Formats: sequence, structure tokens, C-alpha cells
Amino acid sequence: MSGESIAKEANSAFAELKVLTNSERSQALENIYKSLKDNKSSILEANKVDLENARSKNLSSSLIKRLDLGNPGKFDSMLQGILDVANLPDPVGKVTLAKKIDEGLNLYRVTAPIGVLLIIFESRPEVIANITALAIKSGNAAILKGGKESYQTFKVMSNIVSEALSHTKVPSKAIQLIESREDVADLLDQDKYIDLVIPRGSNELVRNIKSNTKIPVLGHADGICSIYIDSKFDLEKAKRIVVDSKTNYPAGCNAVEQLLLNKSIAEDEVKEIINSLIDEKVTVHVTPELKRVISGLNRDYIVDADDSSFDREYLSLDISVKYVDDVKAAIDHINQHSSKHTESIITEDEEIANLFLKSIDSAGIYWNASTRFADGFRYGFGTEVGISTNKIHARGPVGLEGLMSYQYQLKGDGHIVGEYVGGGGEKLFVHEDI
Amino acid sequence: MSGESIAKEANSAFAELKVLTNSERSQALENIYKSLKDNKSSILEANKVDLENARSKNLSSSLIKRLDLGNPGKFDSMLQGILDVANLPDPVGKVTLAKKIDEGLNLYRVTAPIGVLLIIFESRPEVIANITALAIKSGNAAILKGGKESYQTFKVMSNIVSEALSHTKVPSKAIQLIESREDVADLLDQDKYIDLVIPRGSNELVRNIKSNTKIPVLGHADGICSIYIDSKFDLEKAKRIVVDSKTNYPAGCNAVEQLLLNKSIAEDEVKEIINSLIDEKVTVHVTPELKRVISGLNRDYIVDADDSSFDREYLSLDISVKYVDDVKAAIDHINQHSSKHTESIITEDEEIANLFLKSIDSAGIYWNASTRFADGFRYGFGTEVGISTNKIHARGPVGLEGLMSYQYQLKGDGHIVGEYVGGGGEKLFVHEDI
Repeated sequence: MSGESIAKEANSAFAELKVLTNSERSQALENIYKSLKDNKSSILEANKVDLENARSKNLSSSLIKRLDLGNPGKFDSMLQGILDVANLPDPVGKVTLAKKIDEGLNLYRVTAPIGVLLIIFESRPEVIANITALAIKSGNAAILKGGKESYQTFKVMSNIVSEALSHTKVPSKAIQLIESREDVADLLDQDKYIDLVIPRGSNELVRNIKSNTKIPVLGHADGICSIYIDSKFDLEKAKRIVVDSKTNYPAGCNAVEQLLLNKSIAEDEVKEIINSLIDEKVTVHVTPELKRVISGLNRDYIVDADDSSFDREYLSLDISVKYVDDVKAAIDHINQHSSKHTESIITEDEEIANLFLKSIDSAGIYWNASTRFADGFRYGFGTEVGISTNKIHARGPVGLEGLMSYQYQLKGDGHIVGEYVGGGGEKLFVHEDI
Repeated sequence: MSGESIAKEANSAFAELKVLTNSERSQALENIYKSLKDNKSSILEANKVDLENARSKNLSSSLIKRLDLGNPGKFDSMLQGILDVANLPDPVGKVTLAKKIDEGLNLYRVTAPIGVLLIIFESRPEVIANITALAIKSGNAAILKGGKESYQTFKVMSNIVSEALSHTKVPSKAIQLIESREDVADLLDQDKYIDLVIPRGSNELVRNIKSNTKIPVLGHADGICSIYIDSKFDLEKAKRIVVDSKTNYPAGCNAVEQLLLNKSIAEDEVKEIINSLIDEKVTVHVTPELKRVISGLNRDYIVDADDSSFDREYLSLDISVKYVDDVKAAIDHINQHSSKHTESIITEDEEIANLFLKSIDSAGIYWNASTRFADGFRYGFGTEVGISTNKIHARGPVGLEGLMSYQYQLKGDGHIVGEYVGGGGEKLFVHEDI
């Protein structure tokens, strides 16, 4: 089937989905939950085939980890996620503004689904369950395009989801699972029918999608997060936060990639901070003045920073470190070099912290906390759509709200503009909140 | 100066602007207000030169009307608009979500400016004042690129604005007014520094910009608005609304372009509705079955609809009219053919109205009201940025809110992810609203 037909069908399904009630949408999720639960063994079998293929191709261990649905607790928490979403309050039709325009003429702003989502993901098969749940709950249609690594798992799960939907009010074309053989480029051309693309995967995937479509893309290519340690700071907190931000999960987009040190920090404290990283096998990429200060430390983990060091996303046990003059220099550096994901300041000086919080132009700005907190689950949003470094629409970790738009409803009784000022008449608008 | 340098300078100015207080931003607007007021005569003189040039080139009368700052009340209402925006509550730094993540670890979602706006407009010189006021108030930097028709007015106003800003805390590069000789294509390439493009002008202008930039575009190309008249309706209301929607300002994007009639409406009522349009010199483009019904009316204003009639934005005293079977057929037609701007249903049946309100996928959905109400002033938003047919971020008439984004601030005391469930530890999140 062509990308255009797939997108058109999704668009028609969206029109049907848009008018269903919350209980009809939630019922469909419960059906999907039951079917996936009943078919756990066949899904895990298919997943094993994908895993064997991945191992035989020597794919990276982090990819294999992401691919593995058999990891303890992963399948059950995927299932639980569907029920959690089903039980959330209805996100559709909430009135977020109500205004009396004139007698008998009232304006309402009402939450509404966006339309058709195109989700492109690589190796995490549980994304199918996550996104299907979020899309149906929010009244959006979704086209899911999986990567070839998870092809077998994907095929089995997609059949189960389609079958489960066929017994519900949700049209089965509301969730279309596209096998990896079909052409993603063709789908990225369907800006007439598709309203939002959500890529979940490597930064290469995201960057490639962003430069090949006119459809808005929600997500992030890079996560170049920074930590700045100010002159007045607590050494123990600094070490904890820096080590956690770098080593808790180095492949995460919220791992720290650069550390900025106030130049007035005592040399022995600088050494202690850097050494806490080296103790965890982190390689520090340092500028010459910093290299002199830490010359006594284990040289196996010290390399020279180069021109690109402060624009790099390592996704590994590496970090770029440099001195800055003061908080203002740190802010300037971050606003120029960060990917606008998440940045943290470590200081005991509230005024300095507030300047940092106010000045940084990123989705997340932290004070004395690890950058690793940038995550929908940790923020308490439940299932996460992704993390956005966009500056319009949804920003940072995106939950169900990021899949919602709004519409204006105006209810009158024969009202026309020609009777009001500005339209040729004399009547004045009331513009009162109701 | 190259597009890149202009955009870079705007980006640096944004960093300064972002940390100013509301009173510093509002003070700058008052300065601009005073300077424009004091220089009214020189601005109107320059505007006269533009008007003479436009007339000598035989530009359209609607363009000349838009260009003319000397129209009664226009200059003063432009000035008043600046003060109105200055006096609005501060849109920056509002806390829209506050959550306790754990003891001593609190998350806040705080409104923040988007960054750098590129505003491209054609003939309305008052846009300079509108957008300058909105941008500064909201903490965004703006690059304004005017059309050649308003070149003289633009040059004088831009000098006045720059001079007025130089005596304020707002950096003068926060508002850059780019003369029409410089290349817009070059600016549209600056997706690294520019966050949002807002085109205000013809649909050709908007369509051209949308297909030539990776920067998100806020606005609308077409305004193909529809009215559907259901079987149970009030004839007087229908005539009023249809005539107002079509003739109040036919060049407006919120003017109606197509009329759908329930096929069960009595023939004499259909004739009366169509005749009310013909009386106002509206040419009706009709399908064959409708043509038979209205054959007794003035034939000078009746033409045959063709394949493209229901995908056209006339912007003139023309309207396409056809029969539909029922409200569902009307909804299908509108969701397929409209530009997702504004649609209205005329009916006395609340259930039918609610189905329409719930099913239509457009920014505005009206019941018994003229499509011409789709406007920021009429909605009570004050100065308007534009009207958006996008489905993400701002939708419909866009006020100050559409220029705002948000950021997450997380305030901790040395908190790390490694101690919590999911991060390798045992601690549970609290996730309580505060």
C-alpha cells in the first residue's frame, strides 16, 4: 500500500475516532491489554528470534538490551502501562477558556486531539503498546513504523492489536502498524494527512527525519546536557550529581556531556570532583589550564579537549570539562552550545541559581539535581511520548498533553460581525470570562 | 548584513531580553509609543509616498487600503494597541504546574518566551507596532521584514523604534527591522537561530514561506471557511449569517467560501437564502441540481461550479454552493475540503449542532454565528499575532499566549536518579501537586 493510502486511511479513521466517548476509547485499550496478555508467550517467542538475529549481526549490547522484551518486569510493566493510560482522566473536550463575547454569544476553547501521528521507532518493541495506548486515549490516529531489528516482535504484536481493535468501536485503521519493508520517505511526504511525526531512536534517525519532511517533528536529535558548578557550592552534592548525571545511564539523552567549573573553585576541590568521575571510569576531555590542575590524577582517563568537544553528545563514559569565569559565562556557553535539553547548576547561592534558572534557554533547568531526572516517568507524567527540544508546542518530557491540541467553539444565535464596532456596526463586545 | 549575522544578533539580544523584568519591558513599549506619537506627521508623510507609488503602479484597492496609515482612527488605534499590550499582565514566568517529586525535590513548569521570531509582512505598516509590542512584552526577539509596498513608512518607523529602544533596557537588536532589499531566503535558512516564522500577507506569501524553511511557521495559507445549513433551521438567522460571513469583508481569511445546504430544505427557502447573497452582488457557483432550483433568480450572478470550486479561496464576492445529504455528509465534505480555519453550522437542533462541533477538525467551529468572528480582537485577545491553521502549538486567532513557550525548573538539594526505582535504587517518587 502506498504512503498516501495509508495516511488517507489514518485520516478517515481519525474522523471516526474523534467523536468516540472516553469509555469507548478506554474499552479498546482494555481489549488490547487482554489480547497482549493472553498472547505473551507468542510475543516473547518472536522477540527471541529478533534477539538472535541481533546477536548474530553483532549489534551493540545497548541495542540488544532495548530490544529484549523478556527482561524481568518489562513485559508486565508494558501491559500495566496500557491500563494506566486507560484509567487516566479523559484528555478530550476539556474547556480551558470560556468567554462571553456578547449576550447569547459564548466562546469556548476545548481540548482536542491533533489528528494523525506518525511514530517511527527503532528497537524498542514496547513502544507499540505505549503509543497505541496514548494515541487511542487522546483520540489521535497513529501510523507506527518499526525498525528492522524488531521486525518479528512487531509483526506478532501488530496482528494482536489489529485483532483486538476489530471488536471495539475504535476503527482498526486508527492504529496502522507498517512493516519495515515499506518506505518511510513516502510517509514523510504526506503532510496533507499526517499532522505530527514522533521519532524515537538514535540521533541519526531523528536528524534524518527532521531534514526530510515538512510535517512538524516532536522529539530531540541531540541531548547535550551541561552542569555548571558555581564558586559557592557543596562538594558532596556536586560529586553525587555529576557522577549520577554522567554514569547512571550514559546512553540516555539526559546524561550530562559537559561540565563547567567556576574558575575560583579551589584546586583540590576540582581534583576531587574530577577524580570522582575517573573513579567511575569516566574519561575527562579537558582544556589545557584544567589539565595542569589535575595532572596528578590517573592519566589513562585524561585526554585533551578539542574544538568539537563542547558540541558533542558522547552517549558514553566521556565528559568535556572546562573553566568558566562566572555564572554569566556559563550561561553564555550553555545557550550557545547546548541542545536545549536539560542543564543543571550546582550552587548554594540562591541568587546565582535564580539567575541561571531565568537565563537558560533549554527545556529543563535544574538546581542541585541530576540531569537524569529529565524523564516523563520521573516527572510523574506516566507513559512518555518522548522528550522534545522543540521550542513550540510540547517541550521537555512529553506526556499525554503533548498529543493534544485545542479548538475554539463559538455558540451564537444568529450573531453577525456587521453589527459590532470594527465590523461596520456600533455594538460593543462584552469579553467577560464565564 | 547577512541573514546569519542578523539572526545571531537577534539570538544574543533574546538572551538579554529574557531576563528583563516586566516593568523594564513595558517601559520600553511606552518609549516606543511616545516616539511614534511625537513623529506622527513624518510617518504619515512617508506613508503618503508609499501610497502614491502604489497608486501609480495600479496596485489593488484592497492593498492600498491596507497600506494607508492615514485612514481615520488607524494611527491612533495603532498607538493605543502598544499601550494596551504594555498594560497586560506579565506573560513570562507564570507557574502552570508545580509538583513535589520527592522531599526537597520540586518541579515547576514556568511560561517562557519562545526565542527569536521572524515576522514577514506585506502591506500593513501597523504590523511593525503590533508585533514590536507583542514581542517585547513576551520577551521574544523579533526580526521584521516588510514588503516593498510599505518601504518608506517602514524605514521611518524602524528608525523611530530603534532610537526609542536605545534609551531602554531592551537591547536594540531585540527588534531588527530589515529593509526589503535584503534576502528573505537567507533568513529562512537560519533555523539554528530563528525559532518561529510568522508571515502576514497573501496566501502566496505564506505558501511560499512554508515550502522554503525548516523553521516552524505560524499562520495560515488559505482560509476556505464553510457554512452548513441543516434541515431544522431559522431562515432569518441563516440569511443574516450567510450574508455577513460572505460580504462583511470578502478579502478576509475568515470570509465564507462555500455553503452546504441540507437537501431537505424547502426550495423556496433555498431560493431566499441564495437571493439574499445575489442581492448583495455575490456570484454563486452552483452544482447542476441547485441550478435548477434557483433558475428563477438573477442569472448574472449564477455560474456553474466546477471541480475546483470546493477547494477555492475566492477572497471576493463569490461563493460555492451545493447540496449535501445530511450533517454527516457536511462534516465529511468540510473535513476533506476546508483549510481547517473556521466552519459554522446553522441549525436549531442542539444534537445536530453538538455532533458538528465535535466532529469538525478545524481551529474554529461555530453554531449560529458568522465565520467573521474568527479574529483575535473579537475573541477578546487584544492585539493579534495572526490566525493559525496549524494543528500543533497555537491554533485559530493567536494572541500573546501564542508567543509563549514553557520550561521545566527542577529544584533539588543534591538529588540523584540512582537512588530511585527505575534508576537503580529503591526510593519511590511522591508526585504530589503543590
